[in-house]
Amino acid sequence: MTNVTNKQWRLKTRPFGEPGDDTWEYTQTAVPKIQAGQFLVKVDYISLDPAMRGWLNDAKSYIEPVQIGDVMRAGTVGTVIQSQHDKFKAGDVVCGYNGVQSYAVSDGTGMHKVDPNLAPLSYYLGVLGMPGMTGYFGLLKSGEPKAGETVVVSGAAGAVGSLVGQIARIKGCHVVGIAGGKEKCEFLVNELGFDAAVDYKSENVKKALKQTCPNGVDVFFDNVGGDILDDVLTQINQKARIVICGAISQYNNTTPIKGPSNYLSLLVNRAKMEGIVVFDNIKEYPVAMQDIAAWIQSGDLKVKDHIVEGIETFPNTLMMLFKGENFGKLVLKVGE
Amino acid sequence: MTNVTNKQWRLKTRPFGEPGDDTWEYTQTAVPKIQAGQFLVKVDYISLDPAMRGWLNDAKSYIEPVQIGDVMRAGTVGTVIQSQHDKFKAGDVVCGYNGVQSYAVSDGTGMHKVDPNLAPLSYYLGVLGMPGMTGYFGLLKSGEPKAGETVVVSGAAGAVGSLVGQIARIKGCHVVGIAGGKEKCEFLVNELGFDAAVDYKSENVKKALKQTCPNGVDVFFDNVGGDILDDVLTQINQKARIVICGAISQYNNTTPIKGPSNYLSLLVNRAKMEGIVVFDNIKEYPVAMQDIAAWIQSGDLKVKDHIVEGIETFPNTLMMLFKGENFGKLVLKVGE
Repeated sequence: MTNVTNKQWRLKTRPFGEPGDDTWEYTQTAVPKIQAGQFLVKVDYISLDPAMRGWLNDAKSYIEPVQIGDVMRAGTVGTVIQSQHDKFKAGDVVCGYNGVQSYAVSDGTGMHKVDPNLAPLSYYLGVLGMPGMTGYFGLLKSGEPKAGETVVVSGAAGAVGSLVGQIARIKGCHVVGIAGGKEKCEFLVNELGFDAAVDYKSENVKKALKQTCPNGVDVFFDNVGGDILDDVLTQINQKARIVICGAISQYNNTTPIKGPSNYLSLLVNRAKMEGIVVFDNIKEYPVAMQDIAAWIQSGDLKVKDHIVEGIETFPNTLMMLFKGENFGKLVLKVGE
Repeated sequence: MTNVTNKQWRLKTRPFGEPGDDTWEYTQTAVPKIQAGQFLVKVDYISLDPAMRGWLNDAKSYIEPVQIGDVMRAGTVGTVIQSQHDKFKAGDVVCGYNGVQSYAVSDGTGMHKVDPNLAPLSYYLGVLGMPGMTGYFGLLKSGEPKAGETVVVSGAAGAVGSLVGQIARIKGCHVVGIAGGKEKCEFLVNELGFDAAVDYKSENVKKALKQTCPNGVDVFFDNVGGDILDDVLTQINQKARIVICGAISQYNNTTPIKGPSNYLSLLVNRAKMEGIVVFDNIKEYPVAMQDIAAWIQSGDLKVKDHIVEGIETFPNTLMMLFKGENFGKLVLKVGE
């Protein structure tokens, strides 16, 4: 490992609003040495997810905040290159939370092996990883879509949204995606088989939903929040289910989060709004992985990853999520 | 019926914000004559409920808006004084939506007989009427309280809130009520057996909830909305249930409704927020009436009605609800 350094992005200061130049510190350290019971992972791909913004806040949440000075938390897929661990050996491909760095030492906690021959490695961070599990369980367990119902999903061209819409289609629903820009909207309809797409950047969302959801909205899977949530709330049916998966439009707010003004539509329509956290379903992940893998194999499910190369680009690449610039699951390829 | 007139309050113009002088028209007309298949009701008590504000808006809701010129819709209890109907006879005491007027003709639609010997007549508009059914089904079916859990209710000294808190107590929950003023708060604890009460007029609600709900909030039954909903959202437990029954703090807004800024607490806590409309449970009303009557008889449930006399006072008496001036179920006694 001569002349090889471990490149790392660490949290320098907690951002107020958008993460900026002050947020991150780039460090290069020696590749760590392993001890008995440990193994060394060379990280191949790093997952970039909207949830990471929440981990920067010093607030009580479903997971501890990242501490100042720590390597930024991130899901990763990588290759074991040295091992003194009896369950992981050199050559194994492993997933876990190794963080935004090119090498990581692990004692196996939270790590699991994946098969590099079954799918491209990046899939294990997307459709077969946390976003995949989020979409699968959020839609099916909390959204409870029934064939013939109308399912709307926001952030529809993203990692979670594109999966949610396709599962809803597979389940026989009328599916409408909300996304930003013509290219994404055309992709949803032409490539992923959505029934319709609404371009929030160029269309009046409320009007477009009236047109594309003539029977109203039964399930809304929300990744975005803000005005889009309010617009959908005006179109929901009785007993509608709103799945709150995220609110990317609000994560970098410097003012209080915009709560849904139209939340009394829940009352009028006896509807429910429910929050989900993917980790609650961890015991059932194998079932979801099996379903998703089968759908990919049959061609029912299409996967689009957006891979950016170079760990050095992390701060700017992460911001693509909040600017709506990613098209598909955003993944950082560490590179040489 | 010589020299007797039918006193009526009609909707004159739709209010923007608080109902005011322009909203209502007082009319005195001849007591109507009945035809075959009809009966005449002398209205004794008129129910005044927060939901009535919503019926004034020309908006799609769970019920048609009241039309301009129509007698204001209201739940009533009254006595049949003439009948050409085979199921209702003179002397029967009947409940239904006879509106804000002293006499009403009915063909029996939506009317049902009640027993004046079982309970004071006003109870049929409160604890044994729509508010009672709302609290009973809203708490038990949507809130699903379990013994040992913490239940918080806003508008706790009102018709629905006081019942919800007492049922939660009967079910073995730790019960905290939010109400306005020392007198109401003392009543909740000393008379109704709440474990604690928070006076939103003189206390910091968030701090007071931390103190009175040391184990967090499992069920929140909300009649009020606005800042109180946001404060409770900061204190909820995982898998908490928030029942949206109303939002009286927002009904007279002239600006957009304040949506809950802290709604992402639903996500972090995998919690749900659900709207309820009482009419969905109509087939099960008898079960609820039986339970409630039994609790009243055993002394487990105490009832407080706030009766104001004189149909002439309707506009001002209705406003007591929105000013928090009623103490218990607000009922208008028609008077002579």
